[in-house]
Amino acid sequence: MTTSTPIDCLLNPRSVAVIGASDDAARIGGRPIAAMLKLGFTGRILPVNPNRREVQGLPAYASIADLPEVPEVAIVAVQASLVLEAVSALATRGVRVAILFSAGFAETGAEGEALQAEVVAIARRSGMRVLGPNALGIINLHSGFIGSFASSILLGQIRTGCVSVVSQSGAYGGHLLNAARAANIGLSTIAMTGNEGDLTLGDMVRLLVDDPNTGVIALYAEGINDGEGLVEALQAARSARKPVVMMKVGRSDVGSAAARSHTASIAGNDAVVDAVLNELGVVRARTTEELLDIVRLAARGVYPVANTLGVITVSGGAGVIISDAAEDLGLSLPEMPRAAQEKLLKLLPFCAPRNPVDTTAQFVNDLSLIEPFAETMVGEGGYQAVLGFFTYAGATPSVAPRLREQLAAVRARHPDRLYVLVLQGPGDVLRAYEEDGFTVFEDPTRAVVAIGAMSRFGRAFAQAPRAAPQALPPVVLPADTPNELQAKRLLAGAGIVNAPERACAQPEDAVAAAREIGFPVVLKILSPDILHKSDIGGVLLNVGDEEAVRAGFATLLARAHEAAPQARLEGVLVARQITQGVECVMGIQRDAVFGPVAMFGMGGVFVEILNDVVLHRCPFDESVAEQMIRSIRSSSLLLGARGRPLADIAALAKMLSKLSQFAVAAGPRLLSIDLNPVFAMPDGEGAFAADAVIELAAPTKNG
Amino acid sequence: MTTSTPIDCLLNPRSVAVIGASDDAARIGGRPIAAMLKLGFTGRILPVNPNRREVQGLPAYASIADLPEVPEVAIVAVQASLVLEAVSALATRGVRVAILFSAGFAETGAEGEALQAEVVAIARRSGMRVLGPNALGIINLHSGFIGSFASSILLGQIRTGCVSVVSQSGAYGGHLLNAARAANIGLSTIAMTGNEGDLTLGDMVRLLVDDPNTGVIALYAEGINDGEGLVEALQAARSARKPVVMMKVGRSDVGSAAARSHTASIAGNDAVVDAVLNELGVVRARTTEELLDIVRLAARGVYPVANTLGVITVSGGAGVIISDAAEDLGLSLPEMPRAAQEKLLKLLPFCAPRNPVDTTAQFVNDLSLIEPFAETMVGEGGYQAVLGFFTYAGATPSVAPRLREQLAAVRARHPDRLYVLVLQGPGDVLRAYEEDGFTVFEDPTRAVVAIGAMSRFGRAFAQAPRAAPQALPPVVLPADTPNELQAKRLLAGAGIVNAPERACAQPEDAVAAAREIGFPVVLKILSPDILHKSDIGGVLLNVGDEEAVRAGFATLLARAHEAAPQARLEGVLVARQITQGVECVMGIQRDAVFGPVAMFGMGGVFVEILNDVVLHRCPFDESVAEQMIRSIRSSSLLLGARGRPLADIAALAKMLSKLSQFAVAAGPRLLSIDLNPVFAMPDGEGAFAADAVIELAAPTKNG
Repeated sequence: MTTSTPIDCLLNPRSVAVIGASDDAARIGGRPIAAMLKLGFTGRILPVNPNRREVQGLPAYASIADLPEVPEVAIVAVQASLVLEAVSALATRGVRVAILFSAGFAETGAEGEALQAEVVAIARRSGMRVLGPNALGIINLHSGFIGSFASSILLGQIRTGCVSVVSQSGAYGGHLLNAARAANIGLSTIAMTGNEGDLTLGDMVRLLVDDPNTGVIALYAEGINDGEGLVEALQAARSARKPVVMMKVGRSDVGSAAARSHTASIAGNDAVVDAVLNELGVVRARTTEELLDIVRLAARGVYPVANTLGVITVSGGAGVIISDAAEDLGLSLPEMPRAAQEKLLKLLPFCAPRNPVDTTAQFVNDLSLIEPFAETMVGEGGYQAVLGFFTYAGATPSVAPRLREQLAAVRARHPDRLYVLVLQGPGDVLRAYEEDGFTVFEDPTRAVVAIGAMSRFGRAFAQAPRAAPQALPPVVLPADTPNELQAKRLLAGAGIVNAPERACAQPEDAVAAAREIGFPVVLKILSPDILHKSDIGGVLLNVGDEEAVRAGFATLLARAHEAAPQARLEGVLVARQITQGVECVMGIQRDAVFGPVAMFGMGGVFVEILNDVVLHRCPFDESVAEQMIRSIRSSSLLLGARGRPLADIAALAKMLSKLSQFAVAAGPRLLSIDLNPVFAMPDGEGAFAADAVIELAAPTKNG
Repeated sequence: MTTSTPIDCLLNPRSVAVIGASDDAARIGGRPIAAMLKLGFTGRILPVNPNRREVQGLPAYASIADLPEVPEVAIVAVQASLVLEAVSALATRGVRVAILFSAGFAETGAEGEALQAEVVAIARRSGMRVLGPNALGIINLHSGFIGSFASSILLGQIRTGCVSVVSQSGAYGGHLLNAARAANIGLSTIAMTGNEGDLTLGDMVRLLVDDPNTGVIALYAEGINDGEGLVEALQAARSARKPVVMMKVGRSDVGSAAARSHTASIAGNDAVVDAVLNELGVVRARTTEELLDIVRLAARGVYPVANTLGVITVSGGAGVIISDAAEDLGLSLPEMPRAAQEKLLKLLPFCAPRNPVDTTAQFVNDLSLIEPFAETMVGEGGYQAVLGFFTYAGATPSVAPRLREQLAAVRARHPDRLYVLVLQGPGDVLRAYEEDGFTVFEDPTRAVVAIGAMSRFGRAFAQAPRAAPQALPPVVLPADTPNELQAKRLLAGAGIVNAPERACAQPEDAVAAAREIGFPVVLKILSPDILHKSDIGGVLLNVGDEEAVRAGFATLLARAHEAAPQARLEGVLVARQITQGVECVMGIQRDAVFGPVAMFGMGGVFVEILNDVVLHRCPFDESVAEQMIRSIRSSSLLLGARGRPLADIAALAKMLSKLSQFAVAAGPRLLSIDLNPVFAMPDGEGAFAADAVIELAAPTKNG
């Protein structure tokens, strides 16, 4: 297999063939050529058109075979029925990547899907990678390479910068681009992956992680076709300190249905997507505006680790709005140091000096106030992120020049901070502030949301990459779905603790077991022929001492013999009597996109009614498991709330981590595990799974 | 008292005096005059200035006493120390409303607060109303009356329309105005109430409800000083079908602290504010943008009662984003009728015809498609709100004129629907669509949020105004906080049911009581001298038949006599043994702003840990109570979830409604009531309060 052909040529190919090249710059086969010529692309452009000697002033070739050199990249802009032939010819010549604009493949149904599979298979046999089909393609504003038929409307006046965009959808990608242009966001690469017959979102992210012109990545996805590839790419992005913001649509049930009908994608469970993105330090944007707000601020390259915010405002009301939004996001607004507050009160006796620092409208009357105020906040308050609310006043001709000057002086002394301003006014005035290094928002709440995202990036980048826990040896699964006892034994092999219990053939074994387990115990008759033990009085609860164990053993055998004379009696099961545990649930679910995912929640109504659970990709270590346990709303039941005993969180975490490792070691036949209930005992006394259900897929032919 | 002076003259006074009038149009005392002259205000302007014969070309008067007529309204623009004298003189002359620009009152501390109280008291004695002090005042764009020193920057180029704004804060009011201008929102009246020494938010809303030029009201508040007045004004707005959108800041703890330090306001509990606004059909906006988005769409005057949305899109991805947002807001996207879907498929075989209806990018190639698509959706789909996603393509010169024409034709045939478009492009193109009657958003999620608000208004307006339940006779409260038995008796007098129990002096009484209550029963020793009954074995549970009651009676008396020979024994309390009930909690809390507020939630961890409760202003009837009960997340515990029995919701609702009436009848000494637990029995078996605590304030001198 040669699918590992590098695709970095997609950013700036030495040479690019255009199959179905048109002389008409408005047609799909003409647009990329016209755009590359306009943007000064320096690679060789090789138009292929059987009917023309020249296309847009460039020499044209009659066929792929006639090309005078092997192009690194080929753009295929012919109708679907001609794609197979073109791709064969390109693969034969040794082209590295083909970009397939053509529609009429998997997005149209089964027939198109088969054709797509055939096209991709042919390419792969020669090691050629494919972007598309049904793809709007790729644009690199730094090199001027336009492997896309995005219309010139979209390409006009886009500022070149460090933000790259990857979108599955061409139509929504266009909307995004246009919105990015309106927001004056500097863009680097824009890739639209369409049907993802071969190259996926993850491949594009990987490409951009290694691209020095990309600093920030915006992702738009309707479905995820390659979970593993995406996870690896997002891990690489985090290691490279490149923030990723993702809009994954299809959150709702209605949305998910629409997403499935729209793309040929596997729509993963949305809560799993949330969990995976959270794990990888990716910020999930809920709206297009939020996506763009965050990438615009992220392009500044400042990601504070501390989630503290200093606010300077000319309106107390705005200070309250900002405080409300910050609290919603978990950003804290620590108070200014006492001495700094007194300094500000000396400058302006009516100011509110804590944080938000409110200069009141007085700042307009005395413009010299801003520099000492801002300097005190940044220098003495020590905030890593600073938000200034100056609204329309800050953009008026009488105020803007002085305000810019004073803020720039502060920024020059503390260039490592994140500076955000809320201003309203003419575009050129706002852009001047932007050029000074301040990111401008018109709405205070949106500004706070973007700042919150920066500190989430900061914390993700600061985390040492977590080594996966040591892999368990592969688990040998039975051919059939195991019963409870088998399931418990399988899990016990991986160190997952059941409520202590022991099968005992003789009364004195039972006494010894009870001594070891600790009184009181539960005694249960053990017989493969008696399924409903309680019905025959085959369970004795709260057996308190050794004498009672001996008596109970005899009682159970006698009752069993009386009720079922033919039954094979194997003795008695001695189990711990659990009295103090808090009910929890743990489980594993195989996600179609991301593989085994572990779940933890509190038992009973919390899971049933409130869906208060946490999810995490498997495997993970005990510290992650502990974070998971502490993250659910109802975890206070384990943490000593309202006089409850503190539960054995360490034991729970160990069990959850082991379960995640077991799920990986069990391989793809494992569909799900339910441990319900799991009893969390008081601190130091462990945690026990009282029941276990394992669901397996049928073995494949190769076992 | 004459505080009922009408204030409608504030919108268009026949005559207005300006105390502290300045010839300089840039000064605070000059700005209103300059602005009124510019905007063509037709009332008489009477400048008062001891040093000038003429101000801005108008004859000036040396003092208030010298004014040739009694002005309806006076603007006071002098320093704080001169306000008292000016207000006295104005009140003496019989002015109806004084607008006090001057700062230096309650917002500065105790001294300023005293001065403010004195000023307001003098005004009120003569029946003069006061707007302010520390108020940016009032602006009416229809009459050109500018009782405000808002700078000319704010007044430039604001479109006149039907949206009125009431803000407590001048600074944030200015920010709002500027943002409204940028969003091209047509404004009517803008009122900024400052310290609210006399006239409050509620007074301003009441004024605007009666103003024919106001169709929509936007409210910005930091604290609410007159809860009752605001509630009445909002009820009047709903009756008049005038939508109100409110931004009440200070949601968070940090925010609340900032709000208190910023204004001289009482910050009510935020969850109570949510409950009251929800009750009154007011939509609460979380951000400034959301506030403006909603009022902009509300200005169309279309408020669909059904919360159904039809979506036509050129991008499947946008359809998914819109579906996600709609689901979040409870807007439903019903499928198109079958026949209509087939019609669309005939027009465009590749379209997605359900809803969202996806024309794909094909619409650009065949512009004639839009009218039949849109007509089919509106005419046959029957959606009351229609959202079209056309993004940048819909604003291009080649598409916009045809698209406008076709959409306008559909709208002309169905003018009663709510039409919203998502477009990106030059301002003049978007404005042309707006003039055609379509409201344009650039972000699809923001469009959906605004549409969701319209249907909330529609449902609120469609509700018949709910008559308050019949008032209970005033409750006679004891002088001291009552003990449990007293509390239960007080509540029982209002029809609030305790667990059935009867005091019985003789064994045969107890037997009769048990027969009536139903077996099993609980027996408790009754003695004013035995407080801790359980300690002496004075409680017998699960007493199952008549014989056991007789025996139990004797046992309890014997145990009591043995344990406490001196105790006065009054017999035995026979109570129902509750076995099947679901634990709930109910309560009353007196809110400083809105008076008694009732609370309902599920017992135990739901209230303790999850704060899953619902609040409502008192009093309310049983149908409101039932809605409350059904609205909490954990109500499924009462509604038969997961095999649980259906609880007696009607009995719970009756109890909750009675509690709300009791709270009103009890008057202001009632601080709180806790009924915890309340047992909701299976359907038909009632609901019982097992415990009751009532907290009272000390009686006032007049009883």
